Amino acid sequence: MKILIINGPNLNLLGQREKSNYGELTLTKIEEIIKSEYRDDIFTFFQSNNEGEIIDQIQNAAKNYDGLIINPGGYSHTSVAIRDALEVAKLPKVEVHLSNISAREDFRHRSITAPMTDGYLSGFKEKGYLAAVYLIGKIVK
Amino acid sequence: MKILIINGPNLNLLGQREKSNYGELTLTKIEEIIKSEYRDDIFTFFQSNNEGEIIDQIQNAAKNYDGLIINPGGYSHTSVAIRDALEVAKLPKVEVHLSNISAREDFRHRSITAPMTDGYLSGFKEKGYLAAVYLIGKIVK
Amino acid sequence: MKILIINGPNLNLLGQREKSNYGELTLTKIEEIIKSEYRDDIFTFFQSNNEGEIIDQIQNAAKNYDGLIINPGGYSHTSVAIRDALEVAKLPKVEVHLSNISAREDFRHRSITAPMTDGYLSGFKEKGYLAAVYLIGKIVK
Amino acid sequence: MKILIINGPNLNLLGQREKSNYGELTLTKIEEIIKSEYRDDIFTFFQSNNEGEIIDQIQNAAKNYDGLIINPGGYSHTSVAIRDALEVAKLPKVEVHLSNISAREDFRHRSITAPMTDGYLSGFKEKGYLAAVYLIGKIVK
Amino acid sequence: MKILIINGPNLNLLGQREKSNYGELTLTKIEEIIKSEYRDDIFTFFQSNNEGEIIDQIQNAAKNYDGLIINPGGYSHTSVAIRDALEVAKLPKVEVHLSNISAREDFRHRSITAPMTDGYLSGFKEKGYLAAVYLIGKIVK
Amino acid sequence: MKILIINGPNLNLLGQREKSNYGELTLTKIEEIIKSEYRDDIFTFFQSNNEGEIIDQIQNAAKNYDGLIINPGGYSHTSVAIRDALEVAKLPKVEVHLSNISAREDFRHRSITAPMTDGYLSGFKEKGYLAAVYLIGKIVK
Amino acid sequence: MKILIINGPNLNLLGQREKSNYGELTLTKIEEIIKSEYRDDIFTFFQSNNEGEIIDQIQNAAKNYDGLIINPGGYSHTSVAIRDALEVAKLPKVEVHLSNISAREDFRHRSITAPMTDGYLSGFKEKGYLAAVYLIGKIVK
Amino acid sequence: MKILIINGPNLNLLGQREKSNYGELTLTKIEEIIKSEYRDDIFTFFQSNNEGEIIDQIQNAAKNYDGLIINPGGYSHTSVAIRDALEVAKLPKVEVHLSNISAREDFRHRSITAPMTDGYLSGFKEKGYLAAVYLIGKIVK
Amino acid sequence: MKILIINGPNLNLLGQREKSNYGELTLTKIEEIIKSEYRDDIFTFFQSNNEGEIIDQIQNAAKNYDGLIINPGGYSHTSVAIRDALEVAKLPKVEVHLSNISAREDFRHRSITAPMTDGYLSGFKEKGYLAAVYLIGKIVK
Amino acid sequence: MKILIINGPNLNLLGQREKSNYGELTLTKIEEIIKSEYRDDIFTFFQSNNEGEIIDQIQNAAKNYDGLIINPGGYSHTSVAIRDALEVAKLPKVEVHLSNISAREDFRHRSITAPMTDGYLSGFKEKGYLAAVYLIGKIVK
Amino acid sequence: MKILIINGPNLNLLGQREKSNYGELTLTKIEEIIKSEYRDDIFTFFQSNNEGEIIDQIQNAAKNYDGLIINPGGYSHTSVAIRDALEVAKLPKVEVHLSNISAREDFRHRSITAPMTDGYLSGFKEKGYLAAVYLIGKIVK
Amino acid sequence: MKILIINGPNLNLLGQREKSNYGELTLTKIEEIIKSEYRDDIFTFFQSNNEGEIIDQIQNAAKNYDGLIINPGGYSHTSVAIRDALEVAKLPKVEVHLSNISAREDFRHRSITAPMTDGYLSGFKEKGYLAAVYLIGKIVK
Repeated sequence: MKILIINGPNLNLLGQREKSNYGELTLTKIEEIIKSEYRDDIFTFFQSNNEGEIIDQIQNAAKNYDGLIINPGGYSHTSVAIRDALEVAKLPKVEVHLSNISAREDFRHRSITAPMTDGYLSGFKEKGYLAAVYLIGKIVK
Repeated sequence: MKILIINGPNLNLLGQREKSNYGELTLTKIEEIIKSEYRDDIFTFFQSNNEGEIIDQIQNAAKNYDGLIINPGGYSHTSVAIRDALEVAKLPKVEVHLSNISAREDFRHRSITAPMTDGYLSGFKEKGYLAAVYLIGKIVK
Repeated sequence: MKILIINGPNLNLLGQREKSNYGELTLTKIEEIIKSEYRDDIFTFFQSNNEGEIIDQIQNAAKNYDGLIINPGGYSHTSVAIRDALEVAKLPKVEVHLSNISAREDFRHRSITAPMTDGYLSGFKEKGYLAAVYLIGKIVK
Repeated sequence: MKILIINGPNLNLLGQREKSNYGELTLTKIEEIIKSEYRDDIFTFFQSNNEGEIIDQIQNAAKNYDGLIINPGGYSHTSVAIRDALEVAKLPKVEVHLSNISAREDFRHRSITAPMTDGYLSGFKEKGYLAAVYLIGKIVK
Repeated sequence: MKILIINGPNLNLLGQREKSNYGELTLTKIEEIIKSEYRDDIFTFFQSNNEGEIIDQIQNAAKNYDGLIINPGGYSHTSVAIRDALEVAKLPKVEVHLSNISAREDFRHRSITAPMTDGYLSGFKEKGYLAAVYLIGKIVK
Repeated sequence: MKILIINGPNLNLLGQREKSNYGELTLTKIEEIIKSEYRDDIFTFFQSNNEGEIIDQIQNAAKNYDGLIINPGGYSHTSVAIRDALEVAKLPKVEVHLSNISAREDFRHRSITAPMTDGYLSGFKEKGYLAAVYLIGKIVK
Repeated sequence: MKILIINGPNLNLLGQREKSNYGELTLTKIEEIIKSEYRDDIFTFFQSNNEGEIIDQIQNAAKNYDGLIINPGGYSHTSVAIRDALEVAKLPKVEVHLSNISAREDFRHRSITAPMTDGYLSGFKEKGYLAAVYLIGKIVK
Repeated sequence: MKILIINGPNLNLLGQREKSNYGELTLTKIEEIIKSEYRDDIFTFFQSNNEGEIIDQIQNAAKNYDGLIINPGGYSHTSVAIRDALEVAKLPKVEVHLSNISAREDFRHRSITAPMTDGYLSGFKEKGYLAAVYLIGKIVK
Repeated sequence: MKILIINGPNLNLLGQREKSNYGELTLTKIEEIIKSEYRDDIFTFFQSNNEGEIIDQIQNAAKNYDGLIINPGGYSHTSVAIRDALEVAKLPKVEVHLSNISAREDFRHRSITAPMTDGYLSGFKEKGYLAAVYLIGKIVK
Repeated sequence: MKILIINGPNLNLLGQREKSNYGELTLTKIEEIIKSEYRDDIFTFFQSNNEGEIIDQIQNAAKNYDGLIINPGGYSHTSVAIRDALEVAKLPKVEVHLSNISAREDFRHRSITAPMTDGYLSGFKEKGYLAAVYLIGKIVK
Repeated sequence: MKILIINGPNLNLLGQREKSNYGELTLTKIEEIIKSEYRDDIFTFFQSNNEGEIIDQIQNAAKNYDGLIINPGGYSHTSVAIRDALEVAKLPKVEVHLSNISAREDFRHRSITAPMTDGYLSGFKEKGYLAAVYLIGKIVK
Repeated sequence: MKILIINGPNLNLLGQREKSNYGELTLTKIEEIIKSEYRDDIFTFFQSNNEGEIIDQIQNAAKNYDGLIINPGGYSHTSVAIRDALEVAKLPKVEVHLSNISAREDFRHRSITAPMTDGYLSGFKEKGYLAAVYLIGKIVK
C-alpha cells in the first residue's frame, strides 16, 4: 500500500504558529511519527504553498497511490479548483485539519474541499494524520 | 479506561435509512465491531431520541468515564443545550458523523456541538467510531 | 386500515390559544369529529410536548399503521431529528397545520419536516385533519 | 354551490413534465376525476399562462362563485399582483400544488400567494384538487 | 399638454380593498377628481392587470404624450420588464403609490421601477395623483 | 395655516453638492420659491446638522403647526430616534427627498423615517417641497 | 403569592461552568438566597434538561401559580415550542439570563422565547432572580 | 431545419435603448442579418412584451421546430413560469443576451431561465444570435 | 450612594406615545416614583435627544457617581459612539427599556449598547427603573 | 489572425470527470476539432492549474494575439486576480464554460471573471470553443 | 499650509480605553507629538462627541484649511450625514483610525465615511496622524 | 534597516490599468521614488502573480528583514493562505492599496489579509508606499 500525504500552505511553518490551535510539533516531526507508527516505506510527503502544484499532485495521485491524505490549509475555504481536482481523483481520500475548524473564525467553518473526499477529521492535531492512515487502511480493505 | 458512546436520535434505526449515506450496518452490529476491535469491557453504549436524556448522560460523563464519543445526529445542527452540556464536561470528547455532512443538505454543513469537543470525524461510517476510540486513546495518553 | 395521528407540543392546549389562528375547538373535540366523520376504530391518537417521544412514535409507525398524520407544532420549524425520523418511516405520511403558517411570523413559513412527508395542508383548522384522513385513504388505495 | 378552479402557467402541459414531481395525469383527466368524484355541474375550469388573465378571473370570482381553488404554478413564487387580487376576493379560497413544494428547489419553498387564501395543500398530486373541493365544502357549510 | 395615467393590477378594484391602506375611493372617482381639479381633456386613463399590456402602453407613451403617471401596483416590486420599458421612455415620468409602501410588508418597501422615473410619491391616496399632475406640469415647464 | 419645514444635515450646502443629484439651487432660493408660490407668512424654516435639535423641533411641531414637511437628509437612513419622534407627532407630516433615492446607493434606498409620515416624495428636487405644501393643504382640508 | 421558578438545561451544573460568564454559585445556593431574601414558602423550583418537561410545567403554571420566572438556558435560542407554551400561559412571566447574552456568541443574542414574557433581564447573575421576584411582585400588585 | 427565435419584453425597442449596453441595431436589422448569414426560410421570429404569450410560444415550439433561441429580456431574472415552460420543451434551446449581464446591475447577474436551456451566451450583441444559430446547428447534428 | 439616570431621545414625551408599548406614565412621574421608592437625594436625572450630550454625560459618570442607569431609546440600536462611551465608563451600569424590545420591530431586537453594560432589563415599563436601582445596589455591595 | 486559448485548472483531465456535465472529449481532442474546423496555424493553446501562470499568460496576450478565449475553470468563481488581469488586457476576450454553470451548484452560478470579457458562453461543451472562435472573428472584423 | 484635525466621539478619553487597541497616549499628548514632529502653528485641533458639530466643522473646512484629517470614531460606521458632509468638502482629506479596524468586531470593518476621503490609514496608533500629515503634504504639493 | 516590499498580481502592469483608480505611474517608477525618498540600499522589491510564491516570500521575511510592506492586490480579498502566512511572520508589517478600496466594488471593501498586519493604508497611490516606509521606521524605533 502506498499513501500520498499532501500538506498545503503554511503547514511547513508548523511549530511557529500559535500554539493554542496547532501545538508545537513541526511538520518533519509529524512525518517521523507517522512513519514510526506505521511502516516507513509506504508514505510520500508533499508540501507546497502553491495551489497549482497541489492540484498537479492530486491529479497524479490516483495512478500512483492507494490512498490520499490531504490537509489543504487555507485553501480548504477558498479553492474550487482543488475541490474539482479531488472530485476527479478516484482513490480513497481523507481530509485532515490540525485544529478544530468549527471552533475558529467563521470563514474557517466551511471546507469546500471536504465534500469531495471520503470524509474528514478536524481538531486532533498530529494524531489526525495517524487516524487518517488508519482509516485509509480500513477503506482500502 | 472507560469510554461512553452516546448515539442521538434515529441512530437506533441504522440500517433502515438511505444506504448511500449510512451503509447497511445496524447500531448493534457497530457496537459489536467496536468491542471486538478493542476490548470488550471498556465501553458503555447509550442511545436516545430525547435531547434532555442525552444532556443528562453528558453531564454524568466526566465523573464516570475517561472519554466520550458522541454522534448527536440531527441535534448537532440545532441544539445549543447539548453544546452547553459538552462545554462543561471535562473529559476527552470526540464527535462522530457516519455520513460526510459537508456533502449533504446545507443545514447539515454546520455542527454547533462540534466546537465544544476536542475534534470531530465525518464520513467514515462505522469506521469513524473505531477511529474515535483510537483517538481517545491517544488523547488520554 | 389503521391510522396514527400525532400531535406535537402545545396542541393539548387547543382552545386556550389565540382564536384568530386556531379556532375554539379542543383537541378532544377534534378527535371526536374525526372519529364520527370516519370510522371509530381505525384511529390512534398520540400527543406529546416531548421531541424524543414523538420520534419514538414515528419510528414505530411503519410496522403498526397504514398511515401517519402528524402536526409537529413548533417542532416543524426547528427539528432536524423529527425530519430524519419521518424520512425513514415508510408509510403514507401527511403533515397538518391548523393555522395558515405562510401568513404568520417569518420563522413559521418554512417547515423542515414537511419535505419528508407525502404532502402537507395548512390553514384549514380541524378540517385539515379530516382532509388528511381523506388523502391517506386515497394514497393507500 | 359553484366552484371556480384556476390553473396557472404550464399546467396545461401536465403529463409531459417530469414524472417524479407531477405524475402522468393530464389536466383534462384531472378535471374528469373531479367531476366524477363530485357533481358534474358545479365546476368551472380555467387555465391560462397569462398572469393578467388569471388576475381578471380572480377579480370576478367572488360575485359568481361560492369557492375558488387555485394552482398558481410558477406565479406562486413571484406574483405580488396575484396575491393582491386574492386578498380582495371575498370567498372561500384554497391553494393547491401538485408537488410537495417544500421538497423542491429553494425558490419554490415560499408561496407569496398562499397567505391570502384560507389555506393550501401541497404534494398530493391530482388528489389535492379533490381534497380542496372537500375543504371548500366544509368551509362553506 | 397630454398626460397618460397608467394604473396596474387590481387598481380597478379600488374601494373594495382594505380601507386602512387605500381609502374608499373607486378608480373612476379618482379619474373624475383629477379631471375636475385640472382640465378635462388632457388625460388618457389606462388600467390593466396584464404586465405585457402595461409595457405596450409605456412604449407608446413618448411619442403621444407630454407626461406619464404610473401606479404599477404589485408589479412595482417584481417587474424588471416594466423597469426596462420605463428606462427607454423619454418623457417626464412620475410613479404614484396610494399607500405608504415603506410602512407595509417588507417586500413592498422597494420599488424596482421607481429608479427609472423622475421621482415617486407614496402614501397620499388619491391626492398623490393630483400632486403627480402638478409635478409633471412643473417638470415640463 | 402654519407649516414647519425641517431640513436635515448638509442641506444648508445645497448648490455645492453634486449637480446630477441635487441641481444648483441653494436652500435660501428654495425657501423663496416656496414663499412666492404660496403665501409668505405661513412657513417656518429650520435647518440643522444635529440629530438632537431636529428631534427637539419635531417634538414641538404638533402644538405650534398645522403641518410638518421634513427632509431628514442622511438621517433618513440611520435615525431610529427621529423615527420615534415623528411617530409621536400628531399632525400632517410629509417627507421630501430632493434626489430619487431609489436610484442611488443601496444604503439610501430605504428610509426608516418615512413609515412614520403620511407619505413621502423623492426625486423632484425643489419642486418636491412645493408638492409637499400642496399635499399638506389637501390633507388638512 | 406563589411563584414557579423554572431553570432549563445545564443550569443544574451552575458553578462548574466558565466563571467569567456565570460566577461560582450553584443552583441550590441561588435557591437559598432567593428564599432568604423573600419568604420561604412561596417558591417552587423546577429544573430539567428536557424541553418537553419544561413545556409541561409551563402549561400547568397558570392554574397553580401567581407568577412564573423562567431561565430557558440554551432553549431560549432554539425552541419555538417553549415560546408557544409561554404564549398560552396567562400569568405574570419574567425571563432571566445569568450572563449578558448580548455580549456573547451571535447565536445567543436573540431569545425567541422572551417576546412571550412580560419582560426579561440579562447579565445580573443570581441577582437577576431576585430582581425577577421583585418585578413579579410589582406586576401582580 | 426550422428555428423559432423568441424575443421578450422591450426588445422591439432595440436601437432606442442605451447604446453602451445594446448597440444601435434594431430588431428588424438583426433579423435581416440572421437571415442573410444563414438561409432565409428556416427562421420564425416572435416578439412579445407579454409573459403569457411567450410561454404559449415555448409550449408549441417542440412540435413545430428543430431548435429554439430565446432572449427572455427582463423576464430572465423574474419568471419561474417561463423557466417551467422551457423545462418541458424537448428541443435544442439556447438563451441569448445582447449585453454582458454579469457586468450590469446585481439583479441581472442571475438568469433563472438559463438552467433550463442547453446553454446561454451573453454580451455579444447581435452576433450572439448568429452564434446561437451556429450552436443549434451543431447540437442538432 | 449616588446614581445617574440617563434617558435618551423621545423619553421626555412619555405618556404621549402609543400606550400598548409604553403605558401612560410621564417621565416626571417615573422620577417621582423612583425617588419615593428609594431615597430622594441619591438620584440625578438627565434627559436629552442629543447623542453627543448623552456621550458627554456618560464620560463624566464614573468620577461623580456610584452607578449609572441608562435608557438609550432609539440610540440603542444605532449608536456605536454611545457603546464606546459605555465601554470606558468604569462604574456599575444597567440598561433599561420600557417596552419588551424583543417583541417589537426587527430593528429593535438588538441593542448594540447593552453588551457594554453589566446587564439590561426590557419590558417592565417604569418598574424596570426600580429594579435597576435595586440591582445597582446589589452590584455595588 | 492569432488566437490564444487558455484552459484553467483540471481541464487537462477532461474526459475523466463526470460525463453528465462535461462529455467524454479530452482536451487534446477539442484542440484538434478547433484546428480542423478553422485554420491550423492561428491557435496557441495553454493549460495550467496555476493561477499565477494563467495571469502571466493573460498579461502577455494583448501584444501577441488578436483574440483571447479563456475557460478559467474553478478560478472563475474565486479569482479577483484573474479578473484584474483580464480588465487590463486590451484585446477581444471570450469566456467559455463547458457545462451550463447556471444549472450547477450555487457557488458556480456567478463568474467574477466574465464581467471583464466581451461576453461568455456556458453549456455548449466543446462546441462552445468553436462558437467562441466564430465570435472572436466577428468582433475583430 | 493649514490643517484641521477632527477627532470624533470618545477620542477625548484616549488613554482610558482598552490598551490593546489604543495604546496609552492621551489626545493632548498626540497633539503635542504632531506639533513637535511638524511645525507648531499649522494645526487646528477639534474634538467633539456630537455628530452635528463635526458636520459643522467639516462644512467650514474647505474655505479655511488646506487639508483635513479626521478620525470619526464610532461615527465611521453609522453616519451617512458625516459621509455626505465629507463628499462636499473640496480639500485633501485623510481618515485615520488608531486601531486596525479590520481586526476588530464585524461592525467596525466597514467605514462608510472613508469612501469620501482621499484615503485612510488604520492601525498605526498615534503614528497614523503623523503619516496623515505627511500624506496631506504630499497631496497638496 | 532592511525592508521587503512585496507587490501582488497585476501590479507589474501599473500604468496600463484604469487611470482613475491607479494613476499613471509604473511599478519601476514607484520603486525609484521610494529609493530616492529614502536610502537606496535598504529595499528589496518582489513582484509575483503567483499566490504560492508570495507566501514563500512572506515566510522568509522575518529572518531576513526588519519590516515588510505588502500590496496583495486581488489576493487581499480572497486568500486565507496569505493571511495565514502573514499571521506567522513576526516583523513589522504594513499593507498598502494604491486605490481607496472602500470606494470601489463591494467585493474589494474587505481585506482578509489586513487584520494580520500592524495596519494598512488605502487610497494614496504611490505615496502610500512612502508613508508605509515612514511608518515601518516609526514602528521599528
